[in-house]
Amino acid sequence: MATKPDFRGHAGREFFTTRTVAEALAGFRPERRTPAETIALTEALHRVPVAPVTAPHPLPGFPRSTVDGYAVRAADTYGVSEGLPGYLEVTGAVRMGAEPDVMVGPGTVVSMPTGGVLPAGADAVVMVEYTQEAVPGTIEVTRPVAPGEGVVRADEDAAAGAELVPAGRPLRAQDLGMLAAAGITQVSVHARPRVTVFSTGDEVVPPETGEPRPGQVRDATAIALAALITQAGGAAAPGGIVPDDQAALEAGLRGALPGSDMIVISAGSSVGARDETAAAVARLGPPGIWCHGLAIRPGKPTLLAECAGVPLVGLPGNPRSALVVFRLIGMPLVRRAGGCTSPPAEPLVRARLARDLASATGRLDVVQVRLEDGRAVPLFGLSALLSILTAADGYVVVPEEATGLDAGTDVDVTLYR
Amino acid sequence: MATKPDFRGHAGREFFTTRTVAEALAGFRPERRTPAETIALTEALHRVPVAPVTAPHPLPGFPRSTVDGYAVRAADTYGVSEGLPGYLEVTGAVRMGAEPDVMVGPGTVVSMPTGGVLPAGADAVVMVEYTQEAVPGTIEVTRPVAPGEGVVRADEDAAAGAELVPAGRPLRAQDLGMLAAAGITQVSVHARPRVTVFSTGDEVVPPETGEPRPGQVRDATAIALAALITQAGGAAAPGGIVPDDQAALEAGLRGALPGSDMIVISAGSSVGARDETAAAVARLGPPGIWCHGLAIRPGKPTLLAECAGVPLVGLPGNPRSALVVFRLIGMPLVRRAGGCTSPPAEPLVRARLARDLASATGRLDVVQVRLEDGRAVPLFGLSALLSILTAADGYVVVPEEATGLDAGTDVDVTLYR
Repeated sequence: MATKPDFRGHAGREFFTTRTVAEALAGFRPERRTPAETIALTEALHRVPVAPVTAPHPLPGFPRSTVDGYAVRAADTYGVSEGLPGYLEVTGAVRMGAEPDVMVGPGTVVSMPTGGVLPAGADAVVMVEYTQEAVPGTIEVTRPVAPGEGVVRADEDAAAGAELVPAGRPLRAQDLGMLAAAGITQVSVHARPRVTVFSTGDEVVPPETGEPRPGQVRDATAIALAALITQAGGAAAPGGIVPDDQAALEAGLRGALPGSDMIVISAGSSVGARDETAAAVARLGPPGIWCHGLAIRPGKPTLLAECAGVPLVGLPGNPRSALVVFRLIGMPLVRRAGGCTSPPAEPLVRARLARDLASATGRLDVVQVRLEDGRAVPLFGLSALLSILTAADGYVVVPEEATGLDAGTDVDVTLYR
Repeated sequence: MATKPDFRGHAGREFFTTRTVAEALAGFRPERRTPAETIALTEALHRVPVAPVTAPHPLPGFPRSTVDGYAVRAADTYGVSEGLPGYLEVTGAVRMGAEPDVMVGPGTVVSMPTGGVLPAGADAVVMVEYTQEAVPGTIEVTRPVAPGEGVVRADEDAAAGAELVPAGRPLRAQDLGMLAAAGITQVSVHARPRVTVFSTGDEVVPPETGEPRPGQVRDATAIALAALITQAGGAAAPGGIVPDDQAALEAGLRGALPGSDMIVISAGSSVGARDETAAAVARLGPPGIWCHGLAIRPGKPTLLAECAGVPLVGLPGNPRSALVVFRLIGMPLVRRAGGCTSPPAEPLVRARLARDLASATGRLDVVQVRLEDGRAVPLFGLSALLSILTAADGYVVVPEEATGLDAGTDVDVTLYR
C-alpha cells in the first residue's frame, strides 16, 4: 500500500518561473499564424481578413439621387422662394435601375426617384416637397438648391482602390454589406486556428458517463474550453482524456503537434499530476516552457510553452480556474494565432462593489460577481466549485498593484456572453 | 414618356401610424416562439434552453479533497502548533478516480491528492504544507483544521434537483461545462428562428453581378442582415430580390409565410416603392400593420406588422438606415421569437463626445462614431453612405427626450462586433 504520495512539487520544483498576467500577455507572443484561405462572403462573419480589401471601382459608381424629386441645374433655382417660385419644364423621368434617356438643359428638369441615376446636365436634385405642378408638364420650385444637393457622388461611398475593410479586424455585418456592394463575394481570411484540447487525470471520465464511480468526475472543462475557443475564432479539436501518465501524455501531445495551431491541456488536479504535465511538455522540444506558474487567483498552476512552433497552454485542474485563465490568457492566444489584431470589445458594465475584496500585491485576482440593482455582488466559494461561475453575470479584476478593493468602489464588470 | 412620377406618399398616406422606438420595443411584441428541439451539448453554445435544466444527482457526487494533503479527523488536530505538533499514523493513500480502500480512525490519517474521495471517518484534509514526515509512516501536523476544511461536500456544487441553467438565457461556456459535469449531453432548446430576407427594388442586383449597368446597385443589405440575424440567434433564409411590383412582392411574401418565423423586407428607396411594400403587407392578413414610420434617424420609413402569426419588419431602402434600424428593432424581435428572455449584453464604452450633436425632441438619433483617445468622434455624412457604418467603431444614441448633445458630454458608445 502506498503511504508516500508524490509531493515533489512542494520541494521547490513547481512554479519555478512564475510570471504576472501582464508579463504573460506582453511577453508570451508566439509567432505562429494560420495560413490564408478563400471563403464565400456569406460565411465570413467574424472571420479575419489577411490583407486590407480595396474597392475595385468607385461606389456607388454613378451620381445617385438621395431624395424623391427633380434633377435640375442648381443655377436655375437661384433666388426662387415661396413668394417668387421658379417655373421649370419637366422633360422626362428617370426610372429605377436604368440609365436616364434624357438630359437636363437650362430651364428643364427630370423627375427622379430616390436612388436613381442623375441625368447628364443636372447637378442637383430638388425635393418634391419644394415643388408643385403648375400646369401639366411644368413645376413650380419654391426653394433653391446648391450644386451637389440631393446627390451622392459616383465615388462618395468609396473611391476606386479605397480600403473597404482592414486586415486583422473580424468582419462585422456592415463590412460584409460593403464588400457585397463592391461585388466582392469571396474573401481571403486566416484559417481558423485548430486548437487541440486534452483533458488529463485518472479521475476524469467522458460527460456521457451515466454513473461515474465514486472518485470519478465527468469532463466539464473540455466542452467549455471548446466554446471559448469558438468564441475566439478557433476550431477546437478533441484530444481526449489522458490518464495521469507522463509517457501517455507526451505521446498524445506529440501526435497532436503536427495538426495543431495550439494545444491546451487541462491538467490533473494534484501537484504530482501538474508536474507530469510540465515534464511531458518539456520533452516536446525547444524553445519549451516559458512560464510555469502565473500570479493569478484562481489559476496559479498555469503553464505556457512553445514547442516545435506550437503554443501550448497548461491549465489548472479544476474547471473554474481553467476557464478563468483561458479567458484571460488563452483566448488572446487563439485570436493571435488567427491573425486577429483588433479583437472585438468585451461587454463591460460599471457597478458598485457590494463587499470588500482582499487581494495581495503582485497577484491578479478574478472575482465572480452577480449584478443586483447596479451593485456587483462577489460570489465567494471554493475555486473547485463550477457553480460559482454559472451563477455569475461577470467578473471583476483586482489588478496586480492593488491589495484589495473596498466595498463601494466603482468597478468594471466584464459580462459573460 | 412618363412625366408624372408616383409621389402618392407625400399626400399623407405615408407614416400614418408613426411610433417612437420606445413604443415599438414595448408595444410590438409578437407572440410567436420557435418550438423546442433537442441538440447535442457540443452544439449548444449560445442556444436558448426552453426550460430550466436541473441536476439529476448531487455534484460533485462525493466529498472531495480540494488540496494535496492528509485526510484526518479534525478533532485529532486541535491544539497542535509548530512548537507542539501532533503525530498521526499514515494508514494508506487515496488514489485519483478510485474509491478509498481505507478508513480514517482516531490517531490515523490517509494521504490524499487534490480531487480525491474523502475516506470514511475523515471530516477534513490538512494541507501537506502543514505536515512533515516524522518517522516513516508517521507525520507531524503543525496546524489545526476545522471540520469541512480542505473538502468540497458531495452536493456543494449542486444539490439533486438544483437549477443548473435557467430557461431563456443563451448558454455560455461555463453553462456547457456545468451540464457536462452533470452528465447532461443533450439539451432542449428553442429552434433558431427562420428569418426570410427579401430585398426589393428594380435597381437591386445580386452581389455577384460583375458589371452592374448604370443605375443598378448590388444588394448590400441582405448579406449584412443575415449576419445580424445570425448574431441574434436566428437562421437567415434568402427571399431573393423582388422588383418594385406590389403583386410580385405580395406573392413572394405569401410564399414565405408558412416557412418563416419572421420576415424582413429591405424596401425600395423611393416613397412609391415603400408604399408598394406597405400595400403588399397590408393584404397578407390580420392583425396587419402595427406602425409605418418610426421616430428615428436614420430609419424613419420603417414598417412593423404581424400577418398570419408571422412578424414582418419593413426596413428603409438604404443599407445604412436598414442596418441601424435592424440592430435596434429587428434583433430583439429575432431573440424574442427564439425564446431569449435574457439577451447578452452589448459592449459599451464611455467616451467624451468630440462635437455637438443636434437632434429633435421626440426622435431618437443614432450617430455613428469613431473612438479616438477616449473621445467619440461623430461621423457625419449622407445616410445613403454605407462607408460611414464601416468606418465606425460604434454608435451613440441621442434619446427621444433630448434636443441634442453638447460636445464634451460623456456618452455611452455601443461597440460593433
